[in-house]
Amino acid sequence: MKIGIVGGTGYTGVELLRLLARHPEAHLHAITSRKEAGMRVDQMFPSLRGHVDLAFSDPADAGLEQCDLVFFATPNGVAMGEASALVEQGVRIIDLAADFRLRDPAVWERWYKMPHAAPALLAEAVYGLPEVNRSAIAKARVVANPGCYPTAVQLGFLPLLEAGCVDAAHLIADAASGVSGAGRKAEVHTLFAEAADNFSAYGVSGHRHWPEISQGLNAVSAHSVGLVFVPHLTPMIRGIHATLYARITRETDFQQLFEDRYRSEPFVDVLPRGSHPDTRSVRGANLCRMALHRPQGGDTLVVLSVIDNLVKGAAGQAVQNMNIMFGLNERLGLEQVALVP
Amino acid sequence: MKIGIVGGTGYTGVELLRLLARHPEAHLHAITSRKEAGMRVDQMFPSLRGHVDLAFSDPADAGLEQCDLVFFATPNGVAMGEASALVEQGVRIIDLAADFRLRDPAVWERWYKMPHAAPALLAEAVYGLPEVNRSAIAKARVVANPGCYPTAVQLGFLPLLEAGCVDAAHLIADAASGVSGAGRKAEVHTLFAEAADNFSAYGVSGHRHWPEISQGLNAVSAHSVGLVFVPHLTPMIRGIHATLYARITRETDFQQLFEDRYRSEPFVDVLPRGSHPDTRSVRGANLCRMALHRPQGGDTLVVLSVIDNLVKGAAGQAVQNMNIMFGLNERLGLEQVALVP
Amino acid sequence: MKIGIVGGTGYTGVELLRLLARHPEAHLHAITSRKEAGMRVDQMFPSLRGHVDLAFSDPADAGLEQCDLVFFATPNGVAMGEASALVEQGVRIIDLAADFRLRDPAVWERWYKMPHAAPALLAEAVYGLPEVNRSAIAKARVVANPGCYPTAVQLGFLPLLEAGCVDAAHLIADAASGVSGAGRKAEVHTLFAEAADNFSAYGVSGHRHWPEISQGLNAVSAHSVGLVFVPHLTPMIRGIHATLYARITRETDFQQLFEDRYRSEPFVDVLPRGSHPDTRSVRGANLCRMALHRPQGGDTLVVLSVIDNLVKGAAGQAVQNMNIMFGLNERLGLEQVALVP
Amino acid sequence: MKIGIVGGTGYTGVELLRLLARHPEAHLHAITSRKEAGMRVDQMFPSLRGHVDLAFSDPADAGLEQCDLVFFATPNGVAMGEASALVEQGVRIIDLAADFRLRDPAVWERWYKMPHAAPALLAEAVYGLPEVNRSAIAKARVVANPGCYPTAVQLGFLPLLEAGCVDAAHLIADAASGVSGAGRKAEVHTLFAEAADNFSAYGVSGHRHWPEISQGLNAVSAHSVGLVFVPHLTPMIRGIHATLYARITRETDFQQLFEDRYRSEPFVDVLPRGSHPDTRSVRGANLCRMALHRPQGGDTLVVLSVIDNLVKGAAGQAVQNMNIMFGLNERLGLEQVALVP
Repeated sequence: MKIGIVGGTGYTGVELLRLLARHPEAHLHAITSRKEAGMRVDQMFPSLRGHVDLAFSDPADAGLEQCDLVFFATPNGVAMGEASALVEQGVRIIDLAADFRLRDPAVWERWYKMPHAAPALLAEAVYGLPEVNRSAIAKARVVANPGCYPTAVQLGFLPLLEAGCVDAAHLIADAASGVSGAGRKAEVHTLFAEAADNFSAYGVSGHRHWPEISQGLNAVSAHSVGLVFVPHLTPMIRGIHATLYARITRETDFQQLFEDRYRSEPFVDVLPRGSHPDTRSVRGANLCRMALHRPQGGDTLVVLSVIDNLVKGAAGQAVQNMNIMFGLNERLGLEQVALVP
Repeated sequence: MKIGIVGGTGYTGVELLRLLARHPEAHLHAITSRKEAGMRVDQMFPSLRGHVDLAFSDPADAGLEQCDLVFFATPNGVAMGEASALVEQGVRIIDLAADFRLRDPAVWERWYKMPHAAPALLAEAVYGLPEVNRSAIAKARVVANPGCYPTAVQLGFLPLLEAGCVDAAHLIADAASGVSGAGRKAEVHTLFAEAADNFSAYGVSGHRHWPEISQGLNAVSAHSVGLVFVPHLTPMIRGIHATLYARITRETDFQQLFEDRYRSEPFVDVLPRGSHPDTRSVRGANLCRMALHRPQGGDTLVVLSVIDNLVKGAAGQAVQNMNIMFGLNERLGLEQVALVP
Repeated sequence: MKIGIVGGTGYTGVELLRLLARHPEAHLHAITSRKEAGMRVDQMFPSLRGHVDLAFSDPADAGLEQCDLVFFATPNGVAMGEASALVEQGVRIIDLAADFRLRDPAVWERWYKMPHAAPALLAEAVYGLPEVNRSAIAKARVVANPGCYPTAVQLGFLPLLEAGCVDAAHLIADAASGVSGAGRKAEVHTLFAEAADNFSAYGVSGHRHWPEISQGLNAVSAHSVGLVFVPHLTPMIRGIHATLYARITRETDFQQLFEDRYRSEPFVDVLPRGSHPDTRSVRGANLCRMALHRPQGGDTLVVLSVIDNLVKGAAGQAVQNMNIMFGLNERLGLEQVALVP
Repeated sequence: MKIGIVGGTGYTGVELLRLLARHPEAHLHAITSRKEAGMRVDQMFPSLRGHVDLAFSDPADAGLEQCDLVFFATPNGVAMGEASALVEQGVRIIDLAADFRLRDPAVWERWYKMPHAAPALLAEAVYGLPEVNRSAIAKARVVANPGCYPTAVQLGFLPLLEAGCVDAAHLIADAASGVSGAGRKAEVHTLFAEAADNFSAYGVSGHRHWPEISQGLNAVSAHSVGLVFVPHLTPMIRGIHATLYARITRETDFQQLFEDRYRSEPFVDVLPRGSHPDTRSVRGANLCRMALHRPQGGDTLVVLSVIDNLVKGAAGQAVQNMNIMFGLNERLGLEQVALVP
């Protein structure tokens, strides 16, 4: 399988490289970066010395059209401009940015402040959450890799909404993210001296992952979904922890419900009753771990859901989608044990 | 004013010392530690060199009965055994542990797993949240200094419950604490290599601050309070961030409500609409900062409330209570600017 | 005393504000920022709410010429262009950048890659290390506030070189700095996700603090100084730890030597033999703590020296210099206890 | 290959499990812990769920004598008491503690404060630094896995001492370690709230790794080695950074010297001239990265050497030794890419 990566200089890019470098079926053909063309990849990321023997190439010279699959690890708005030409030449696409995540171009435009450049491709794109869309992903030409918060939050609410046993109109998702979630961009608020030893909410009045999560939850819920989503920045490098609150409308054995729903999922792990998943227990691993609580036996169910934002929340899920698209064992290249401590 | 501290070897102890060392009216008479008796305080805490010229003394020799005020910075269960003898000798008490926080001895026993040793003193003790009980604190012989989470959560819900404009039966408090909140005890789960680069909830099925918060909120609410409280551990040293969710039952100008409620409070700061308070903005300062949001204009109000768990959540609030008890300017010794970055 | 600050949007700026806001003799007249003119200072730094009631002003409108003292907390190269006009109007200057630190304009030009704009002022400027130049500082019109590494390293070597008891030609200074030392600039390498959980040396072949330290040590040494200086970046916000190595050429009681040298210094604290100073023991405090070791009784002396890079290494030392220049008690406004934990 | 682990509840234990779980030739037979016998390993370390399907067993029931190889990941002093019985039954041993590191039982006793329990086995034990002792390791019955600091420091000085081009009598090793190096023991000084945002030296007058490093360097040096070793604690989880200083006595192309020495070593990576290795570039990887500098062209050479203390400094090196002992490809199970960011 010949693989191309467009825009490999950010955190999802280097994480893709880490995973693909050890993937037995993926042959890395080209990594493009207009700005860094000619620079060896392992000069920018010395951790890849001995594992990736490529230089960044200019998109024009990269021969991406010869690839079987191209990952876009670019800022929002790039993939939608370049994907069509590749798809027409038979290249399949996984976009790690947001370009193909929102079904409705009008919603896209409202939240991302730009018109959609490829509405036809958007119409056929598949939202790449394997636990929901596995068979569609297998056949897709374009896969929209989900956002990090949306992965953790949707997987946590999914069994409840599918079973229709909570008040869909009043869901609360309170989540905390490590700072790598903000990307490898030079900005003041994510400097070490700003983000360390500090904790704060952000985007409470409106975060771009809100419409994505709402869309995904609505798709599986019989009742219209109302969601309050509050993200926080926490001083760690990797990891998302979502604490989800839902009012119970119909009693059932919730622990059993979750275990049944995810029994055959290779990358979702439901912990025993009473557990508290650590984000570090999935650090570097393609895994969503979750646990259920019912405080004081009341009518509110609490779901704790953790992922590594760069793996199950980005590059790992992208490789999982790649495996599905190409009929490989879904676990291939994704069996790293989490790095603890 | 002659001041004694019982048990000054933990984080609330050293923080009390930091504040009292620069307090113009407080004269530090004795600090006791059975285990460390004879050791200079600044040998254990070199940060106090040049500021505290005392050694730990054995409680038996400390002459605490000569003090005007004794702070207990001891583990739960110590103060209730020793306070009565001091009070009888005219010494006033501020307990930074939980011994006098829960009005009902039966509730105390259920959550702290020991019978209450001084129910009579408990009956007269005043819960030391100045924003609620200022005048009772002024006259109290025994003040129960509030817990850290309870301070941040109660101050955030207070105006809403007093005004009766939210559904008191379904409140959610989602909070994150820095690791110093777990105290200066040798334990594996709070080691650097365990707690750094990690985030998790804990005590979701039941945390000792839940009955304390519930009691405080019920005291100001016309309707019975139902609270879900989920604490999390976040990799920072100091700080608590509470994200509070309440369903609106009666419309009002919530921002105005909060500004009016706290206008004359020296240590509560309501930020402008749309703000996101950082915990670091109160690091080392005796302050609760808060902000209000109403995501997507829906029916859920989100209050963000931050404190330094060791200052407004412990030692600073204790000094504030001391100032009130002795008729001093409430701000005395508490005007430090937060340490940023 | 009317005080002006030019360029108050960086870390040394906000730290100056923290200290001056509580200084009993300093009246803050103006803070300038061309870029942020009109913005309230406490909007950029909410930690200053209630303490600083000023907005950033345009340098042209700030009335700096009416000040008794102007601090420059600007990037290198700014102060040397603006200081002369102010000095001519009787304003005294403390520059927290490097413009007036190197006596020789040619050396300045080699290390800072720009010609010196005010060689006459440079000639009269006093290097603001009070432990060496106190009386000259008292009379100076322009004070060059030392760099952070240079403060920690010079104070550690000073007694040895003054006494002439080590091999001056082969000194080694191995130092680690918190990330705030890199300033509040948007850069990739100081992002949280880059600098956290990481440690590396930088600038080993040549760092701008090398000529500054060499100049300072040569000034007090009878023999020519040869220095190897290796700085490292360590994942903490504040603090510098210098580990200094010197070959002993003449035996003496080194502990006594240091205690005698610094006995009357208000802001240098020599710890007992065998101590290991923590950077946190000076966090937020204007203090250099040091300790001496002689491993295996060999011929190499090891000096450990710590400061808070933003206080004794920048803003605190600047306030100390201000106190000296204006005949105030040198301790005024600088008696904060370090924030531990 | 049947593998046993004695004492798998510490950080080197869980790291061994992480590596062995994915090693294609190692079959994990038993993990012992007297204290935790019966507890599932993945209950203590949820990161191992799905990877390690074992419970801790009591040493008496573990059947360690059936193993081909037993790793001791125990506190110092345990392996020397238990190894002989196993060796007599044909089991080979890799001890990750210090019991077999120091050749001279008297030196052992002086530094570890206990007599050596197995001097005969000590006499035949091989020091497991593959870059020095590869062929002896291949045949060894007992391998003493090197300490973390000793690995980073010896690999950095080795080419210089073998070539005899520096002053062996005056070497300086200044090193910083992540907190996991202190182990998974409940102690106050390694709590998050103590070790975070802090930096300090420790053990300057004498650290147990000093005799180990000295012994190793003396073994390859024609001249007697004099070493000053100063370790520091830095607020990161994993990683050791050693900054080594040596006075040049004979000129040569030092970069070339290092590249030649390590060209065929699978786990030593000499970076290009002028580089500064990050500890994170080896996080989770079995690798020592190093770079050379010659500040100001003077007579002091500076070597920067980084490892992950738990991998090349402990469990990874142990697996590398296992591969060598059993004639496997040395890289087997050790090709993880470092986790960045």
